[in-house]
Amino acid sequence: MKEFKNIREKLDRLEKTYRSMTDGGKTASYIPELADVNPRLFSISATSVGGESFSSGDSDTLFSMQSISKVVSLAFALERFGAERVFKKVGMEPCAEPFNSIMKLEISSNIPLNPFINSGAITVASLIAEDLGGDAIDAVLEFASLCAGRRPENKLSVNEKIRESEASTADRNWALAYFMHSTGALTHTVKDSLDLYFSMCSIEANTVDLSFIGATIANGGLSASGVRVISLDTVYILIGLMSTCGLYNGSGEFAVRVGLPAKSGVCGGILCTVPGRMGISVFSPPLDERGNSVAGVKALGALSREMKLRGL
Amino acid sequence: MKEFKNIREKLDRLEKTYRSMTDGGKTASYIPELADVNPRLFSISATSVGGESFSSGDSDTLFSMQSISKVVSLAFALERFGAERVFKKVGMEPCAEPFNSIMKLEISSNIPLNPFINSGAITVASLIAEDLGGDAIDAVLEFASLCAGRRPENKLSVNEKIRESEASTADRNWALAYFMHSTGALTHTVKDSLDLYFSMCSIEANTVDLSFIGATIANGGLSASGVRVISLDTVYILIGLMSTCGLYNGSGEFAVRVGLPAKSGVCGGILCTVPGRMGISVFSPPLDERGNSVAGVKALGALSREMKLRGL
Amino acid sequence: MKEFKNIREKLDRLEKTYRSMTDGGKTASYIPELADVNPRLFSISATSVGGESFSSGDSDTLFSMQSISKVVSLAFALERFGAERVFKKVGMEPCAEPFNSIMKLEISSNIPLNPFINSGAITVASLIAEDLGGDAIDAVLEFASLCAGRRPENKLSVNEKIRESEASTADRNWALAYFMHSTGALTHTVKDSLDLYFSMCSIEANTVDLSFIGATIANGGLSASGVRVISLDTVYILIGLMSTCGLYNGSGEFAVRVGLPAKSGVCGGILCTVPGRMGISVFSPPLDERGNSVAGVKALGALSREMKLRGL
Amino acid sequence: MKEFKNIREKLDRLEKTYRSMTDGGKTASYIPELADVNPRLFSISATSVGGESFSSGDSDTLFSMQSISKVVSLAFALERFGAERVFKKVGMEPCAEPFNSIMKLEISSNIPLNPFINSGAITVASLIAEDLGGDAIDAVLEFASLCAGRRPENKLSVNEKIRESEASTADRNWALAYFMHSTGALTHTVKDSLDLYFSMCSIEANTVDLSFIGATIANGGLSASGVRVISLDTVYILIGLMSTCGLYNGSGEFAVRVGLPAKSGVCGGILCTVPGRMGISVFSPPLDERGNSVAGVKALGALSREMKLRGL
Repeated sequence: MKEFKNIREKLDRLEKTYRSMTDGGKTASYIPELADVNPRLFSISATSVGGESFSSGDSDTLFSMQSISKVVSLAFALERFGAERVFKKVGMEPCAEPFNSIMKLEISSNIPLNPFINSGAITVASLIAEDLGGDAIDAVLEFASLCAGRRPENKLSVNEKIRESEASTADRNWALAYFMHSTGALTHTVKDSLDLYFSMCSIEANTVDLSFIGATIANGGLSASGVRVISLDTVYILIGLMSTCGLYNGSGEFAVRVGLPAKSGVCGGILCTVPGRMGISVFSPPLDERGNSVAGVKALGALSREMKLRGL
Repeated sequence: MKEFKNIREKLDRLEKTYRSMTDGGKTASYIPELADVNPRLFSISATSVGGESFSSGDSDTLFSMQSISKVVSLAFALERFGAERVFKKVGMEPCAEPFNSIMKLEISSNIPLNPFINSGAITVASLIAEDLGGDAIDAVLEFASLCAGRRPENKLSVNEKIRESEASTADRNWALAYFMHSTGALTHTVKDSLDLYFSMCSIEANTVDLSFIGATIANGGLSASGVRVISLDTVYILIGLMSTCGLYNGSGEFAVRVGLPAKSGVCGGILCTVPGRMGISVFSPPLDERGNSVAGVKALGALSREMKLRGL
Repeated sequence: MKEFKNIREKLDRLEKTYRSMTDGGKTASYIPELADVNPRLFSISATSVGGESFSSGDSDTLFSMQSISKVVSLAFALERFGAERVFKKVGMEPCAEPFNSIMKLEISSNIPLNPFINSGAITVASLIAEDLGGDAIDAVLEFASLCAGRRPENKLSVNEKIRESEASTADRNWALAYFMHSTGALTHTVKDSLDLYFSMCSIEANTVDLSFIGATIANGGLSASGVRVISLDTVYILIGLMSTCGLYNGSGEFAVRVGLPAKSGVCGGILCTVPGRMGISVFSPPLDERGNSVAGVKALGALSREMKLRGL
Repeated sequence: MKEFKNIREKLDRLEKTYRSMTDGGKTASYIPELADVNPRLFSISATSVGGESFSSGDSDTLFSMQSISKVVSLAFALERFGAERVFKKVGMEPCAEPFNSIMKLEISSNIPLNPFINSGAITVASLIAEDLGGDAIDAVLEFASLCAGRRPENKLSVNEKIRESEASTADRNWALAYFMHSTGALTHTVKDSLDLYFSMCSIEANTVDLSFIGATIANGGLSASGVRVISLDTVYILIGLMSTCGLYNGSGEFAVRVGLPAKSGVCGGILCTVPGRMGISVFSPPLDERGNSVAGVKALGALSREMKLRGL
């Protein structure tokens, strides 16, 4: 692929420039597994729709996907239940609220605004948990592994220690889930819905994996090996929501600075997709006050400009 | 331009298919000039970054730009004052509130969320009015005409009758402006700020004009005749905000269905840009309950898929 | 007491007139113990500050105090911890929100508005549970029994079946408690705080008991037998909050129609106090849409006018 | 009247004690007429239902009634239009919002919560202005003068300078009125409604006048000279709303500390009524952060305890 010609040196340069440009950002502090991570870690990976993949930095380092898993769970739910059924449970509009706000729900007495805020991702998890019961997390892991181009013997898995930490410090998510159960927005049990939600947040991946997921989306749903993993209709939904709601209440600024569909997580990772061209992922743990990787956003902005990834 | 080869027949087909697919939508009712427009009007125009332009339908029909003018006023303000000064007065985050909500402002005691909701566009108008006084509207018209590729002797102009109707029925905008003046978010006088705001909403254009503006943005800020009208930095801001906030509280759904940077108005027009490729504009007055042209969104969705305008 | 001369016939007349004036009100439906209660039950009791007590109707019928227990738990907490410590955890302002709203908390990121909405009563319960551990409910029951003039061998007790039903259907309260735990408004464990809260809601009493509690408050904190049970400072707080916040988001209308300090519960009971004169309690299960006993409010309004209980 | 025996020395003692106990409170700053008032002014007056009246301090000093006029305008509207018609335009529930909040209106898309917040008082003014046109303020002044026991040749009047200052600095009130006009909550013109509202806020009175108004209410609507000025039904409404909503978002705390129906204004005055017994008024300009007179609340609290005005 022509545009991949000098990609390796571009990624190396980004790594050198941005690894330490974290501007006083802080790693997430609510669980020790995130708080204690080395803030100097940095990794960036790019994978073309044809499956060529290049990385620079700590690309072997696994980290929990956190909110990035919301892309995977939404894709899984859309493939399994269809858009009509999913969007009866969750909206598709961006919002300027913090990711864990209850207020919008209470005012509207209604469904969560979109599947990338916590309340929306919990309703998506609830749909899956209700349908698949105890098999849910295995099914999601299999699907995520396919998207990431992982071989069957090397599937993605849940970090149990992180999952337990998540479950034990998630007051706000328990509040959201009980609230939605009280309004009828959540019909499955609070406990099983959150169990799956916490498990999905705790799936471990590295930037190589995430760039392959981005490439699968960029390729219209075909994995690097040419297998259809996601339908084109689902891909349009993912791209649309990643464009408008992917970076919490920093989504608008990201659209200005980077201009690409993406999803961030408090792990410090960002999964990005360039439709028709490639998947990109970056990882740097220190976060800005909205929960997005400081260096990650900068590196993606630089690459977007340099490679004219938004078409300009 | 290769992709423009069959554009005429594509536009003709869209016009035939969508002119009457308005699904019970209603024209805006708050002023007679909008309420009494013929709901059967339909026009679609596409202009390449090279300046080739094709239209189908009622492309001679002029209509007031309404909220589409928010793109022009933001671009003008960014060019004149710089991003730093503008974004001290207005944010860049999408919101799920209706365009004329006061609530978000009151909760945050802060600046409007983005320049494409009324409160944000009023603060932008206020900046311009404060700086240019009575010359403001002429300067904006000149700038808009340049973006639209209009010749100097054929500049865009304000429809005075519509401007007066706007001013006399704009309770909510007066409320927003007085509220912002009380919190200090608006520093210029309420009256002069709104006067300019209403004038800009009442600029008349047709879909050819709007597709040229879209093409100028798509071309990185160079007009069809190769003149730099907008800087690339401003273009990135416009594209980012049009992607996330351009269709009121239907922006997320539009990102899913069409997937292109755009701005709608209650006139029934939509201005759309395909970075690096073309500008597109559609006009059909009947609106859905969020204020977006029903047939316009459909036609753009069909064209986006057919021509793989989002890269897929 | 002079004004008690014809009290028996007044109560009898009220019972006859209002027992069936329930205007389409509905019993609380969220647990079977409340939903299945006989809607024709009616009881009214008045007890003078001197301890004379008269009743009419089903005054032997015990019912769970529900929100009326919030008066008892607040009084208990004020006596035990002092006003300063209690009002660090909860405010003293009325609100027009429904009793179980999370929104106000989220906007203010702060303490609950007053101790008579659920969030506020949960923080009060939490204070008590944190201090007394497993002995909390017994201590509260002993205190409530003293206020109600019950003999030691005949203390008030918790209806365990109702307590279990409450605990298992209280999604909104779990949401509130987890939310407050996440913001730091609640420092004790969610589970223990709610356990005590549900237990207190499930204390059973009849209108005779409640009118004695009202008389103790009306008597400046001295029980019918002349023992100081509540300090005068606490009485002023109870009277002030019952005047402004006692009937959920119907408190203003009640102040207009009845004009007396009171507290209602979804059991259909209302506890009312006439400072310096008497306690009054009424019970009729069908509720209006704000959760207040329809016939209870009417009967109290009639008695207030007839006996000029508000001083006029 | 027995309880008035030592009233003069009580008032003198209160004046001495509280004139300077303003705890860092500040006079209202939004107009010069309020900002520049002498913060050491202090006056307290008590008038029995029989018409005996005693004062201490600067009781000749006139001040603009500000929000205290909301009691008069509500009483006037209730007498003229009846409760049913008035309470179609405004609710009767207290709220913890600041007096000039737009948010509650926007969330409920509905009528103002009560007639003592600005939005509610503006709808009441609007009703009167719509009915009486240019004669409105004279009719209100005549009514207020009757309530205050003023002789016909000595009627209350509007301070024109204050009225003009109010009108020119009332951004938030203009915002409220335009907002309510946009939702249909206000049907009369914004300008005429606010003109009357500002005029009523600018009626000048002293604490003697206000204590007479309080006595008229305390006397069930009969003025000191025995003339019926207000119906008993209206009195019940005034007392109910003054008990729950009279001191802005400090109404709950006032109910605890003082426990009497009252209405405050940013002039530093408080009008208080003791049903069946007397009217009391206090004036001291420095305000707490909620807009209530610091020393005024303290003095009323002391008098309420000493004279057991709440019945205890």
